[in-house]
Amino acid sequence: MNRIARVAVVGTGVIGRSWMQVFARAGCSVHAYDPDPAQLRSAREWFQGDLERRFAEKRLSADEVRACASRVVTIAALPEAVSQADYVQESGPERIEVKRAIFSALDAAAPRQAILASSASALDMTDIADGLSDPGRCVTVHPVNPPHLVPVVEIVPGRATDPSIVRRTREFLAQVGQTPVVLNSYVPGFLLNRMQAVLVAEAVGLFERGIADVEAIDTVVREGLGLRWALLGPFGVAHTNADGGIRQYFDRFGDGYSGLVRDRAPVPSFTPELIERIGRSTDAMMRGVPVAESRVWRDRLIEKLRAVKVADPHP
Amino acid sequence: MNRIARVAVVGTGVIGRSWMQVFARAGCSVHAYDPDPAQLRSAREWFQGDLERRFAEKRLSADEVRACASRVVTIAALPEAVSQADYVQESGPERIEVKRAIFSALDAAAPRQAILASSASALDMTDIADGLSDPGRCVTVHPVNPPHLVPVVEIVPGRATDPSIVRRTREFLAQVGQTPVVLNSYVPGFLLNRMQAVLVAEAVGLFERGIADVEAIDTVVREGLGLRWALLGPFGVAHTNADGGIRQYFDRFGDGYSGLVRDRAPVPSFTPELIERIGRSTDAMMRGVPVAESRVWRDRLIEKLRAVKVADPHP
Repeated sequence: MNRIARVAVVGTGVIGRSWMQVFARAGCSVHAYDPDPAQLRSAREWFQGDLERRFAEKRLSADEVRACASRVVTIAALPEAVSQADYVQESGPERIEVKRAIFSALDAAAPRQAILASSASALDMTDIADGLSDPGRCVTVHPVNPPHLVPVVEIVPGRATDPSIVRRTREFLAQVGQTPVVLNSYVPGFLLNRMQAVLVAEAVGLFERGIADVEAIDTVVREGLGLRWALLGPFGVAHTNADGGIRQYFDRFGDGYSGLVRDRAPVPSFTPELIERIGRSTDAMMRGVPVAESRVWRDRLIEKLRAVKVADPHP
Repeated sequence: MNRIARVAVVGTGVIGRSWMQVFARAGCSVHAYDPDPAQLRSAREWFQGDLERRFAEKRLSADEVRACASRVVTIAALPEAVSQADYVQESGPERIEVKRAIFSALDAAAPRQAILASSASALDMTDIADGLSDPGRCVTVHPVNPPHLVPVVEIVPGRATDPSIVRRTREFLAQVGQTPVVLNSYVPGFLLNRMQAVLVAEAVGLFERGIADVEAIDTVVREGLGLRWALLGPFGVAHTNADGGIRQYFDRFGDGYSGLVRDRAPVPSFTPELIERIGRSTDAMMRGVPVAESRVWRDRLIEKLRAVKVADPHP
């Protein structure tokens, strides 16, 4: 396999511009395209601004900023943007007809050996790539927002995806510093959004029934469950919670879990009234801090938490 | 309200001895009791060993170690252990007849003004305190294991619990450095174990269907969801994921969530075969690292993650 060096980023909204960062930081040459010239310009500005912020924080040298900036070229035409790519990361709107049109254009314009990846969070690559000349090289590569801060990426093959494409995609993403995981097949919501959805549903159910307010529920996650889940997933937590490991844990507590699951909240119905009640309880928790300010803090802290784990990894 | 200064810890297993630490570190005088003299001795040894580890790591001075150690007295008789307590934290076995017997003894031996708290993780204080002379001062105070490392504590009143007892308990727990949250009423599993159970069930369902292995599922949590949940709970994450905050977020994505929840895994059935399959996939992930070693790492890292948040709190 040839090393992947030339990447095309197609679609430069919030996800696409974060991908530009991931690839440029890792040393790839990046061609970025968006059908909207204003979007493309704003992505370039954001990218440059983020480099300068890292320079100001003394995390990049002036040379590194220059080198990183020089790797990214914005291009106003799709065929030109992808014509030399080894790997294309598409991050367009999540609508099947849009994705199909983009992938048809990619299939025609990208080199025959290029991997065609989509940031799709819900659609099935089987449907997106249906009818293309080579659906075998098409694969879903779903990041967590934003990928330049949160490393995990879900790789989901379509039914026609070639296993060697899955393997090469995984290797490439690890190379550029992400943490790829591979699903054996498509399932709605993949792994991440399914696990997130069931927890959110239970949280909403507890709030709706009046058991606790938003702040109490969130506190239990951020000062309890989340401290462990930032280090170990649900299986790792179970494993370390019994001296005899996970077999002993589920042998003892499996029935208890099943009992709680049987009692879980029903499927939530997000009526305007419920959303407003949640909104008011969330307002009380956030105490007037603007969303943008919370987000800057969150993103800064995510980097710090990752640094703690990198400095002291699991044995 | 008088400041709570004298605490009794009743039951000194893994949870009870961790409580000894919490209270002693915060400056309380601690009387510790366990019906099993060997258990009581081993709790004292663990407590002393932990102080010495912190001294070796230069996180406590020799004076602090001495002062902390001098605050804890182990006592072989329950009435004597609780006779001067302002607050009793019971951490006995999770069986209703055992809890009822202990609370009956506490009710008889503790001063009339003392708060009687139970570390119960599943039982309802309404049942534990039923028939006591003063059920109003009895309350569930459920920690996450181990409370000297994970700060969140769930306060769950029984039907007879006096609201002023809930308030004083909350103030006291905040005073000793925990992060108390109050539930308005009992619900099986409280907040934490309910949210944990639905996520575990979905994780088990994804594994059982062959969508992904244990390592992929755990990675999605520890390098994705968990990084955010260590900072913001499910409502805070939703709030910061839309420029317009949580109302806009659920307005846009609420139906998507409901769709995924409708598709969630069924109630898991932890058969020996399933547990063994999970065990083998977990073995592959843990690569032979002993449980105790993973746990030491986890506990060390939890302290480091908390330190990051204390140093740079949410605005």
